[in-house]
Amino acid sequence: MYFQAFFIFSLLFISSTQAAVLDFCVGDLSVPDGPGGYACKKPSKVTVDDFVFSGLGTPVKLNPLIKAAVTPAFAPQFPGLNGLGISMARLDFAVGGVIPMHTHPGASEVLYVVQGEICAGFISSSDNKVFFKNLKQGDIMVYPQGLLHFQINSGKTPAMAVISFSSPTPGLQITDFALFANDLATELVAATTFLDAATIKKLKGVLGGTN
Amino acid sequence: MYFQAFFIFSLLFISSTQAAVLDFCVGDLSVPDGPGGYACKKPSKVTVDDFVFSGLGTPVKLNPLIKAAVTPAFAPQFPGLNGLGISMARLDFAVGGVIPMHTHPGASEVLYVVQGEICAGFISSSDNKVFFKNLKQGDIMVYPQGLLHFQINSGKTPAMAVISFSSPTPGLQITDFALFANDLATELVAATTFLDAATIKKLKGVLGGTN
Amino acid sequence: MYFQAFFIFSLLFISSTQAAVLDFCVGDLSVPDGPGGYACKKPSKVTVDDFVFSGLGTPVKLNPLIKAAVTPAFAPQFPGLNGLGISMARLDFAVGGVIPMHTHPGASEVLYVVQGEICAGFISSSDNKVFFKNLKQGDIMVYPQGLLHFQINSGKTPAMAVISFSSPTPGLQITDFALFANDLATELVAATTFLDAATIKKLKGVLGGTN
Amino acid sequence: MYFQAFFIFSLLFISSTQAAVLDFCVGDLSVPDGPGGYACKKPSKVTVDDFVFSGLGTPVKLNPLIKAAVTPAFAPQFPGLNGLGISMARLDFAVGGVIPMHTHPGASEVLYVVQGEICAGFISSSDNKVFFKNLKQGDIMVYPQGLLHFQINSGKTPAMAVISFSSPTPGLQITDFALFANDLATELVAATTFLDAATIKKLKGVLGGTN
Amino acid sequence: MYFQAFFIFSLLFISSTQAAVLDFCVGDLSVPDGPGGYACKKPSKVTVDDFVFSGLGTPVKLNPLIKAAVTPAFAPQFPGLNGLGISMARLDFAVGGVIPMHTHPGASEVLYVVQGEICAGFISSSDNKVFFKNLKQGDIMVYPQGLLHFQINSGKTPAMAVISFSSPTPGLQITDFALFANDLATELVAATTFLDAATIKKLKGVLGGTN
Amino acid sequence: MYFQAFFIFSLLFISSTQAAVLDFCVGDLSVPDGPGGYACKKPSKVTVDDFVFSGLGTPVKLNPLIKAAVTPAFAPQFPGLNGLGISMARLDFAVGGVIPMHTHPGASEVLYVVQGEICAGFISSSDNKVFFKNLKQGDIMVYPQGLLHFQINSGKTPAMAVISFSSPTPGLQITDFALFANDLATELVAATTFLDAATIKKLKGVLGGTN
Repeated sequence: MYFQAFFIFSLLFISSTQAAVLDFCVGDLSVPDGPGGYACKKPSKVTVDDFVFSGLGTPVKLNPLIKAAVTPAFAPQFPGLNGLGISMARLDFAVGGVIPMHTHPGASEVLYVVQGEICAGFISSSDNKVFFKNLKQGDIMVYPQGLLHFQINSGKTPAMAVISFSSPTPGLQITDFALFANDLATELVAATTFLDAATIKKLKGVLGGTN
Repeated sequence: MYFQAFFIFSLLFISSTQAAVLDFCVGDLSVPDGPGGYACKKPSKVTVDDFVFSGLGTPVKLNPLIKAAVTPAFAPQFPGLNGLGISMARLDFAVGGVIPMHTHPGASEVLYVVQGEICAGFISSSDNKVFFKNLKQGDIMVYPQGLLHFQINSGKTPAMAVISFSSPTPGLQITDFALFANDLATELVAATTFLDAATIKKLKGVLGGTN
Repeated sequence: MYFQAFFIFSLLFISSTQAAVLDFCVGDLSVPDGPGGYACKKPSKVTVDDFVFSGLGTPVKLNPLIKAAVTPAFAPQFPGLNGLGISMARLDFAVGGVIPMHTHPGASEVLYVVQGEICAGFISSSDNKVFFKNLKQGDIMVYPQGLLHFQINSGKTPAMAVISFSSPTPGLQITDFALFANDLATELVAATTFLDAATIKKLKGVLGGTN
Repeated sequence: MYFQAFFIFSLLFISSTQAAVLDFCVGDLSVPDGPGGYACKKPSKVTVDDFVFSGLGTPVKLNPLIKAAVTPAFAPQFPGLNGLGISMARLDFAVGGVIPMHTHPGASEVLYVVQGEICAGFISSSDNKVFFKNLKQGDIMVYPQGLLHFQINSGKTPAMAVISFSSPTPGLQITDFALFANDLATELVAATTFLDAATIKKLKGVLGGTN
Repeated sequence: MYFQAFFIFSLLFISSTQAAVLDFCVGDLSVPDGPGGYACKKPSKVTVDDFVFSGLGTPVKLNPLIKAAVTPAFAPQFPGLNGLGISMARLDFAVGGVIPMHTHPGASEVLYVVQGEICAGFISSSDNKVFFKNLKQGDIMVYPQGLLHFQINSGKTPAMAVISFSSPTPGLQITDFALFANDLATELVAATTFLDAATIKKLKGVLGGTN
Repeated sequence: MYFQAFFIFSLLFISSTQAAVLDFCVGDLSVPDGPGGYACKKPSKVTVDDFVFSGLGTPVKLNPLIKAAVTPAFAPQFPGLNGLGISMARLDFAVGGVIPMHTHPGASEVLYVVQGEICAGFISSSDNKVFFKNLKQGDIMVYPQGLLHFQINSGKTPAMAVISFSSPTPGLQITDFALFANDLATELVAATTFLDAATIKKLKGVLGGTN
């Protein structure tokens, strides 16, 4: 039963080379993308390196204001994720570090505490209820899609977490950056938040906003 | 705490310009589309005008036969909707105006009566049951995806409604146009409806069909 | 050909009563819901009134602080939308009225200006760019899912808009309510925004928050 | 390496019995369904017979008016399909048999001609263009979701086809049944089609409609 | 009422030619594809032949080792399926023919026995339970997405089945081919299965693998 | 502007308690589930502990045969993930530990190496090509949905990885368990793999299978 040669098998899947892109769609950042993601790199040019990303291996320089950093491995950084419904990122915190209030418009998130202790929480939309807890190493916490959430290093040592998203392009909107790090006129910010002009102008100064 | 300069923040999101298309995908009608919609316009060329459409602001000329008109704001007319799962249209009715039996193959619909009074209904597929009602100004009604439905101006004044769909490309198939406004042979129409040839030929005459 | 009686046809769809729920799934709010929506009301109890909602026909009392109101027709208010991928709401504005910065975690939105003039905008997540414009009666504008946006009555008369969402349960998270209308400790709000304690306590006072 | 006993392996998946429903969700027709389908039968009660259906094996009695029959294997008939995104049906045609103009509101369809010769076609919504062809045994044809289509036995022998759908609950709306086999008032049918009252009443007579 | 000419109707859908691709998206294999499928062929070049495929009409040459053959009608072979959520294939078996253990990573499958008798089954992931049965002509069986399954001609005559999938690109991974028909080093295969090197090398010989 | 009391705001969202489940759907394992996941726990009973899971914090006892362990945090273990499109698990490896060839029928996976060195790979379905690489601490690798893959501790120390999935219920089918750890008759295994009866019986002995 085991003596037949390989050429026999190739009969069965004679059309397989044409179908070679079905399993994955490594993103080709050089051509226009569509609502579902990037166009696919030619299968014949795909190698294992398209499916491996090393950019989360070393901590990036922390942002001194928040004493923390977010390093994304989303589809634009790691095109092998394109079309696969998932992505990752790394959070680094110095002592006292904070990831400020933010949302991911396109995905739910799970966080795994690799090192240290993190106070993390989210705010539900229906009744503004806050769900937060102090997480120990090895704990995981989930943040439902689109809701405001935050992470604070609550320990006495640096902390690190790996986070994962239910989309290759989850997006990230940090509330204070969205409000104060652009040219939206102070009076429009004032009208749409309950902040006074002086506070807004101070924060625009800190975060680089104008107007 | 508020003295740091803006350049500090830019460290955090050094890769953000590359990711600038994640939030939306304004359709570029000049390149091939895919099953999920049009390819995305370059983010650097996107302006607020891509997200605003004024074509529903004024009533179009009514079709004298039905004394009504449908003005779509689907992705081909309003490419900012591309990939966002929603679209709109406007219905105008003279007194006695009618939107004939039709389906939207790709979306459910909600109708809001802006002005006048509209008798609207749909037919369920499982038991041919008709659900219809006279709607007053401010009423809304939902039509499940793909089911035959209709709207009739049931009042003594012109009527206007805004309708919304669960897809940027809901499609619109008006039954009588599908049956009588093309070159499908009269005997094929007769065989697949229960209409006689004379009726079919008369309707082909009215609606511009041949054969 | 036309003489056969109805009983003949019933042969073709003898199993149809069992399948009677396929077209729609009117939500039954009395039994547990799942991730995709509410359980379905028994088809035999469904009437046309399940598909019509009149709660958007008359303006609700405005909130005096924002001089505006949001009246939702989401699945909990209008269970006929359950499972159909769409919902609506009505915005009313007095002169000077504002819908403050907010997000819909679960849907994109399209707004249609029924009356008046509305300055509306959203903020992209990738580069904090603001897209806003003064909308006239009949204009429509789209807000991509999950992004911060706002609406302001920019005219000299009351304004009204109908908005539609790409989900029966889009959610609504008003940033200031999420931050200041609950018991999240002032020091946690301070740590995760760039606001000082005095500002936070003042806003908690206005919005009913504690701690 | 091969001497270890089975109990060792059970350590690895100690939680697996709790997860026993993950692979499939055989529909339990006795409890409420939701927008995504029926609730799942208890895994411990599932047998291979839940995944096998024999109802397509023998032709049902043909409907004498259309000399044809549709035998569905949708989720209500074959609950093992629940949640799996697919279903089947069988079409039988006597000589001259016809499946009249119809749509499936919830699915695309592929047809495989098992026996005989079938003239089949669909009508596009955007320009009312008809795509039809005479299919031989072994040919397959696809009908995009929600579009009007038909099948006619175009040969001199009985014909049989197996059709498959991209949903366990595709729905089936036969245009003439939807228009004439219910109590929708003749004047409403007349207003929303371009048919005259006499034709409508005649068809209501044939198809069992009233009013 | 029936005297108006066709040109009147064209007013209603003046933008329809621009929207002509909404109903379907016949795959254009010559341009880059994306995660959702191929780019769409220009609508003006689409004909009925894009929606019909004749490649399943005649049995292909059987593979002598398994005495069987799989003939796919997936999107790469039948681009009219692109974006429509469905595909088909044909299975041919000589007496004693077998489709070996395999999975479809991207779709659930339904099988219809056109001719002969087939012993078919699948293995659940949660508890390794096997669900298998001897199927007669006309029986259908469903295989949930991604699970190992197999088909064996269990009768005394050739057998044929038509299978359908819940995706235009279901994929096909035959376990033994994946393990033994490539250059994966024998020691890696040994480490990740419980097979010894001699067995692996023998199977690599049969199936054309190296290393 | 800041003097109004809280009760004013409650006017705006008078229906919000009814809508309290919109943001999330913590799984209630005591009632029937559906194709989309478990029914939702009553919102009033949801606490922050529903969104935190500590079961990945400490390594479980390794399976001595494979010198490794998989600890899942899927929806059945961590019901807070229900409906949110994501889950996690932890892989522990002693020196020489191996996670054998397996698939996840319902999700793509990303792996993050927390500690040690892991040789990991997957096999594409279209051409049986193997993509594998030696991963260092901090590297991430993606495995497309449904494809065979494996992980081997390739270093000289224990290794640990956190993996994430694009579904709360990804499933896990280990090929050798599926083939040899049940009662599937040896002759059926032989017929559907290319293994001889002696090898199959030996593996059934190791893995606890019968027949």
